[in-house]
Amino acid sequence: MATASMLSVEDALERILTYFHVLEPEDRALLDCLGQVLAEDVRSDIDIPPLPNSSMDGYAVQWASIAGATSETPRLLRVLGEVAAGSLPHQEVVPGGAIRIMTGAPIPQGADTIVPFEDTDELERRRRGEGKLTEIAILKELRRGANVRPAALDVAKGQMVLSKGTELRASEIGVLASLGKARVKVIRRPVIAVLATGDELVEPGQVLSPGKIYDINTYSIAASVLRYGGIPRVLGIAQDNLESLEAKVEEGLDSDLLITTAGVSKGDYDIVKDVLAHRGQIDFWSVRMRPAKPLAFGVLFQRDKGGRVLKHVPHLGLPGNPVSSMVAFEQFGRPAILKMMGKEDFAKPTLEAILEEPIINDDGRRVYARAIVSKRNGVYYARLTGHQGSNILTSMAKANALAICPEDVPMMKAGERVKVQMLDWAEDQS
Amino acid sequence: MATASMLSVEDALERILTYFHVLEPEDRALLDCLGQVLAEDVRSDIDIPPLPNSSMDGYAVQWASIAGATSETPRLLRVLGEVAAGSLPHQEVVPGGAIRIMTGAPIPQGADTIVPFEDTDELERRRRGEGKLTEIAILKELRRGANVRPAALDVAKGQMVLSKGTELRASEIGVLASLGKARVKVIRRPVIAVLATGDELVEPGQVLSPGKIYDINTYSIAASVLRYGGIPRVLGIAQDNLESLEAKVEEGLDSDLLITTAGVSKGDYDIVKDVLAHRGQIDFWSVRMRPAKPLAFGVLFQRDKGGRVLKHVPHLGLPGNPVSSMVAFEQFGRPAILKMMGKEDFAKPTLEAILEEPIINDDGRRVYARAIVSKRNGVYYARLTGHQGSNILTSMAKANALAICPEDVPMMKAGERVKVQMLDWAEDQS
Repeated sequence: MATASMLSVEDALERILTYFHVLEPEDRALLDCLGQVLAEDVRSDIDIPPLPNSSMDGYAVQWASIAGATSETPRLLRVLGEVAAGSLPHQEVVPGGAIRIMTGAPIPQGADTIVPFEDTDELERRRRGEGKLTEIAILKELRRGANVRPAALDVAKGQMVLSKGTELRASEIGVLASLGKARVKVIRRPVIAVLATGDELVEPGQVLSPGKIYDINTYSIAASVLRYGGIPRVLGIAQDNLESLEAKVEEGLDSDLLITTAGVSKGDYDIVKDVLAHRGQIDFWSVRMRPAKPLAFGVLFQRDKGGRVLKHVPHLGLPGNPVSSMVAFEQFGRPAILKMMGKEDFAKPTLEAILEEPIINDDGRRVYARAIVSKRNGVYYARLTGHQGSNILTSMAKANALAICPEDVPMMKAGERVKVQMLDWAEDQS
Repeated sequence: MATASMLSVEDALERILTYFHVLEPEDRALLDCLGQVLAEDVRSDIDIPPLPNSSMDGYAVQWASIAGATSETPRLLRVLGEVAAGSLPHQEVVPGGAIRIMTGAPIPQGADTIVPFEDTDELERRRRGEGKLTEIAILKELRRGANVRPAALDVAKGQMVLSKGTELRASEIGVLASLGKARVKVIRRPVIAVLATGDELVEPGQVLSPGKIYDINTYSIAASVLRYGGIPRVLGIAQDNLESLEAKVEEGLDSDLLITTAGVSKGDYDIVKDVLAHRGQIDFWSVRMRPAKPLAFGVLFQRDKGGRVLKHVPHLGLPGNPVSSMVAFEQFGRPAILKMMGKEDFAKPTLEAILEEPIINDDGRRVYARAIVSKRNGVYYARLTGHQGSNILTSMAKANALAICPEDVPMMKAGERVKVQMLDWAEDQS
């Protein structure tokens, strides 16, 4: 085993990431950019709240008018009017007067304190059948300024509220709405062309003739692209001949990344490598990992009719085995997508679990074993999903994690602590 | 404080969930159903792999022809032909013969063992410039059956592969493709109508006149609906008058759930409650939680022109404060959506963290404090995001979790263990 000539996972990823940059901004409607990253600093043009306002339904009063109030010694005030949320108060609160006020409504001139309904006799008066109230008894002295929210309590005009690079979740989208932003500049989502190669492949839904198998990788990889926020462009299946491959690869050049599956093993009898090498600069790597040792990476050139290079399009060539291609996508495709989207953290998150059965590592590669991680009494445990052959996709469907055995560890025993990459959190299943 | 008359969060959720059922199936293209739940058991119509095939690029041989082979005592075999993946072998392997074979190609008649290229002298012959090889030396005796993958190793014809209720992730979508399924029956996504109410509200992008504020809840709630897999139908803003509210509520009845924001507090001067009560059976609850104590829940009736009830549409009335509405949505709206989607686990996942500052609970309600949870040396810590006023949405944008102080605990001190609901996992930020 020539493991010395193999690339480590880290080195392969580092080389790959140098080819990707944060994509350009686009201007989008607020509800269309969940999960995208802000491409601009957002400052507020307004104070929030814009005016001092009431945090309760109640009566706006001058504090001096209610000083000393108790249920035994209530203060009787004249009701001067009413102000609803969204209206401006037209009257002023004078000594001995009160204005009925709704939550969120601006504080009338003259008032400095809000007395909530429950500290007045309003409910009692209503029960007695009083119609429009002309006076109200205050049953409690509150502190001066009670239930008054000052202007700009949440955000001051000119304040930086969300900075460039922030990922937009539901709460950030709410914050942008509160500033009055109907549209916002975000980093656009990358378009990822997905191409399966191989004469043996048939599209699902078609009849399977003897010797053929259904194309899996187009679906598992395109779904993975979607999951991490990219826009998959499905190119379908290229046959193993020059015309078919050339045409499909050409189609894929109008994307931010072309992902192919199969045809990248070092020993392979495969036209895929010839076409790719002819179209650009592609390296064929052996990565010190299992599954997914063979990997191709490089750039393809989009040329005009005169042959001049218009654009470089990164190319990631994943292995043909469905498990290998998914595991390699997680390690190399996912970070590329996240980097293009402007996300800051594209390392795959890991946690530590107790291994419940051994992982054998017989050839010095880093093993990504399909595993089921579960939590019992606050501790994570990892068991494997059975046969780890890279053609066994059902084992990937059973797994929710990849348990990692380092390249220099020939065997991990049951009971040892193992690093696991989560494929989906419990939260993600929602 | 009449906490005794309040509903617990659990009781409120239990009552709410009785109104929701798993929605009906729809038939969708494979790549359109990521995150949806299978509405049928899926059995395989085929063996996978369909035929015994090679797991390596190499030569298909009879084991007897290579017995005893070493690099010193190679076995020289006649090359009878070649079989690529996706082709059927046309020749039979006879004693002393070999057929060149590619990974995934069906094993030719007569062969029982595959010798990989590296255990032959093929590379050396290529280096010497031999063209079409007519013979090949085998340099190693392999075990009988080496590198032959039996038919049906992954899946047998008739086998149940994915059961009803399975959530479709990228790997399940790959598995369905491997079975040849181009379309699949999944539980449809719920349509959630979102209606903001209040005269004070203005749509983002419009000019803000004095006393008005921008509508936040439409955006934060619709984005939350999207995030958990629902399809938001944005109804916009209903003014506080009968015509506007009636028209908007009517529009919202063509959905699986109508969510309104504001107008549900017990003391509120609000026409919203009148309209809802008139249109269906709505309860106005106080839930023993902070923020988000006031909550409305019930059903609205969609009627035909003759007044006959055609359909019951559940209604969830969230408080108007943007933080309250988001927190209440997480506790009550999210589980309703997940239940309709056919997901099994709709409890919000929690983890335990060390609280880094106190939570004060002065009125016997369950506190959901906006918090930032981070992990240091394998331990989760939770600190609060500052002022916990329910109008302060920026504090929600800073948070990645809600730290929970139980209703019967008047204060949690720094250093205590606290349950936190994660609003987004690190993984989710991807």
